Amino acid sequence: MLSLEELARHLGARLVLPSTGDAPAIARVAEPARADATSLVFAEDAASLERALRSAAGAVLVSQSATIPQPVTKALLLAAQPRLAFARAGRLLQPRSVRRGIHATAIVPASAQVADTAAIDAYAVLGESVAIGENSKIGAGCVIADGCHVGADCILHPRVVLYGGVTLGDRVVVHAGAVLGSDGFGYVRDAATGEYLQFPQQGTLAIEDDVEIGANTTVDRSALAETRIERGAKLDNLVHVGHNVVIGRNVVIAAQTGISGSSTVGEGAILGGQVGVGEHADIGADVILGGGAGVLSKKKLRGPGQVFWGRPAQPLRAYLRSLAALAKLAAKQKD
Amino acid sequence: MLSLEELARHLGARLVLPSTGDAPAIARVAEPARADATSLVFAEDAASLERALRSAAGAVLVSQSATIPQPVTKALLLAAQPRLAFARAGRLLQPRSVRRGIHATAIVPASAQVADTAAIDAYAVLGESVAIGENSKIGAGCVIADGCHVGADCILHPRVVLYGGVTLGDRVVVHAGAVLGSDGFGYVRDAATGEYLQFPQQGTLAIEDDVEIGANTTVDRSALAETRIERGAKLDNLVHVGHNVVIGRNVVIAAQTGISGSSTVGEGAILGGQVGVGEHADIGADVILGGGAGVLSKKKLRGPGQVFWGRPAQPLRAYLRSLAALAKLAAKQKD
Amino acid sequence: MLSLEELARHLGARLVLPSTGDAPAIARVAEPARADATSLVFAEDAASLERALRSAAGAVLVSQSATIPQPVTKALLLAAQPRLAFARAGRLLQPRSVRRGIHATAIVPASAQVADTAAIDAYAVLGESVAIGENSKIGAGCVIADGCHVGADCILHPRVVLYGGVTLGDRVVVHAGAVLGSDGFGYVRDAATGEYLQFPQQGTLAIEDDVEIGANTTVDRSALAETRIERGAKLDNLVHVGHNVVIGRNVVIAAQTGISGSSTVGEGAILGGQVGVGEHADIGADVILGGGAGVLSKKKLRGPGQVFWGRPAQPLRAYLRSLAALAKLAAKQKD
Repeated sequence: MLSLEELARHLGARLVLPSTGDAPAIARVAEPARADATSLVFAEDAASLERALRSAAGAVLVSQSATIPQPVTKALLLAAQPRLAFARAGRLLQPRSVRRGIHATAIVPASAQVADTAAIDAYAVLGESVAIGENSKIGAGCVIADGCHVGADCILHPRVVLYGGVTLGDRVVVHAGAVLGSDGFGYVRDAATGEYLQFPQQGTLAIEDDVEIGANTTVDRSALAETRIERGAKLDNLVHVGHNVVIGRNVVIAAQTGISGSSTVGEGAILGGQVGVGEHADIGADVILGGGAGVLSKKKLRGPGQVFWGRPAQPLRAYLRSLAALAKLAAKQKD
Repeated sequence: MLSLEELARHLGARLVLPSTGDAPAIARVAEPARADATSLVFAEDAASLERALRSAAGAVLVSQSATIPQPVTKALLLAAQPRLAFARAGRLLQPRSVRRGIHATAIVPASAQVADTAAIDAYAVLGESVAIGENSKIGAGCVIADGCHVGADCILHPRVVLYGGVTLGDRVVVHAGAVLGSDGFGYVRDAATGEYLQFPQQGTLAIEDDVEIGANTTVDRSALAETRIERGAKLDNLVHVGHNVVIGRNVVIAAQTGISGSSTVGEGAILGGQVGVGEHADIGADVILGGGAGVLSKKKLRGPGQVFWGRPAQPLRAYLRSLAALAKLAAKQKD
Repeated sequence: MLSLEELARHLGARLVLPSTGDAPAIARVAEPARADATSLVFAEDAASLERALRSAAGAVLVSQSATIPQPVTKALLLAAQPRLAFARAGRLLQPRSVRRGIHATAIVPASAQVADTAAIDAYAVLGESVAIGENSKIGAGCVIADGCHVGADCILHPRVVLYGGVTLGDRVVVHAGAVLGSDGFGYVRDAATGEYLQFPQQGTLAIEDDVEIGANTTVDRSALAETRIERGAKLDNLVHVGHNVVIGRNVVIAAQTGISGSSTVGEGAILGGQVGVGEHADIGADVILGGGAGVLSKKKLRGPGQVFWGRPAQPLRAYLRSLAALAKLAAKQKD
């Protein structure tokens, strides 16, 4: 529970109390339909503000530039970015696990270094020389192989696997079932027999600070160098990242997208769901790929804020034009 | 083993014995090529009936309206829906695990309620206040976080993860590696820094009776409300279901399909494999989406029994017309 | 560490020493930029040979038909297929786990047969009558259900699940989180109620020698017969293989591809990432499917070395023609 004053201070928001003076303590964030007197809700426009004010919520986060209906009937928190402040409030109010220490069933070799404030849950298995930083939580059944380093304030949900030598920065979140550092998919075919032999997959994987990785997502280690996911990137569920890939800072990748080996995704790029990127492709900073788009191997896409779509991906206008042209043509086609 | 009389009674089928009077007990269902004298096979048309009668099977399930070659050479079970009756027979005859009780290595806190007839397998980890219903089986290495409720007669195969507060109805089957209740993929971008902060993902996930979920499939909890998979829906492997999605009753979703946040899929809809559905889309009852179809965000599709296909999805006839028109055009194109 | 003579003998390569006579022992394979004096690098053309010779590497693997700049400045290993020899060298030099024996926390029933040279890691759970062959490594948290047979020299990375009765040949590698032998996605709809009942999924899954399976990939058992992945096939991460599928020898399948039930993929075929194959399709030997290609149900594709692409998949030239024709048409289209 936080008082509205504390909340306002944490969020950098301005508190406006109603004429009644009601200033309830806030226990949680909610949507208006499910709010109660201890809930904080948020509004982004006049319609949602009206809904928020009519709700049972104890307080409303709203833009500092919004027109507030008078008289004020509910405690208001005025913020520059109300949705962002709401997200911050959600984090502040979320009950945090206070567990620390190593569960009796966790396997932690003497060579591992686990911070005193870290928690290692039941049946987790740590390899030799693993390091786990302050306040990090390792979920039940995680397997963290030899030589991995996990920074501070990380959350590994249950059953995450880190292959040997993977490094995670601080505040990294990995959802259940994700596999980080598995072998890349690189083979050499023997011309004599037609059989495939694995090309060496002995490089590493580095995940930087504030990266979040979805459930059952897989990220391969590099063949001979380093696969890297840079600071602040967010990956959804069931995403595949191949060997030697570099994902830039604050990149967002929606579910079931796959990035083939040796491709790069520039800082701030946004990839929709089920996007496919071929090998050695190069997606520039702040490029946007629509859901299901396909980028050919070795293709270079450039243009901050530019949207590319379709398979193969083309600039949005060209893609929409080709859809329109085809629809027109199809309309003339007899069944 | 069941006698043919018992089987007929369970299946609501009519038993016709051959002139020899042979009425073997039945141990299993099989396909004709792998059948033996204790096997039940089924036939849906004249050709498959002939194959079934020539096989080594002990008995044949066949439509009550089929023309039966005379004289009858094998025990027959006449049913209104022979394939359905065969599926029921398969379920009846399948060896059922009779294990019950909590494995010595399973972690079950005092606040958890596990029915006497339930089985909790090795290294499963239950959180506080978890409830497991009658006859439910929790596989090895499952992690069921605080506050989850699992109904009766459920089967959780090994290494399933349920995040906190997920509820499962009765007779739910979850295949290995599935992750239910993970955080939705919702972020707010800080306009000042370009960084993303997670939007609160603190809602719930409810899975109703008779739902079946494939291996390594992921279903996210709601942001602030409830993600819901309604009674009888069947999801294949590696499917992704985003936050706030509602999947209606008896919906079928094939492998690797992804449903983005806040979309709804109406009762009885059928989605092929690798379908992609954007956010806030609305797929009506009994709509059929062909494999690989793509549904745009906010799109509404309607029409019971109507097939939509392509990316973006369009009515089948329009899609086929556009394929035909393009093929014609391409044929005139020089290389 | 191996001497260059030993390495040359193992690889069937011819050793050429530099005029200095330097013949360093080799500890690992590397890429030129990360090489040191104990590293072996490889070169496939004149440019990469020059890079390799300028690097700090101790020795260079190069084609026996390459033109070698004189005088020779670095130890050379001349091989018929230098990339293949490099892959072999990587395997030779890779530190191998020498662990053997059953971890104290692994659950191994008396009916299981584990070879003395095999290793069963922490919290692995073996079912009744499981057999594990010589030198095979079963990773932490793996679950291997009743009746599975794992051959010799296999590596199961952590948290792999094998359902009952699955068989693996020799030298099979399965990456973390993969699920092998789960139920196929086959249902019968009850015409009276609209509900679905599972069609019996009681067949088996056989994985032959030298198959490698990626992280979080899922392969379903057969309904009533056998799903089979034949010798030497390689599957990437997050691949889905449905029930009754047969994948031929030395087939390569890239990430996130899905093969629906009862389809066959012929020997030597190559499937790119995110390919979708419908049910009962038949992909001939040595056929190549471009990334994202879609093969319709019951479709037959034939032609060794032939590339098919697009959705639905067509011969490469036809597909490229249709792309070109559409682009031309779109260029005439007004926005």
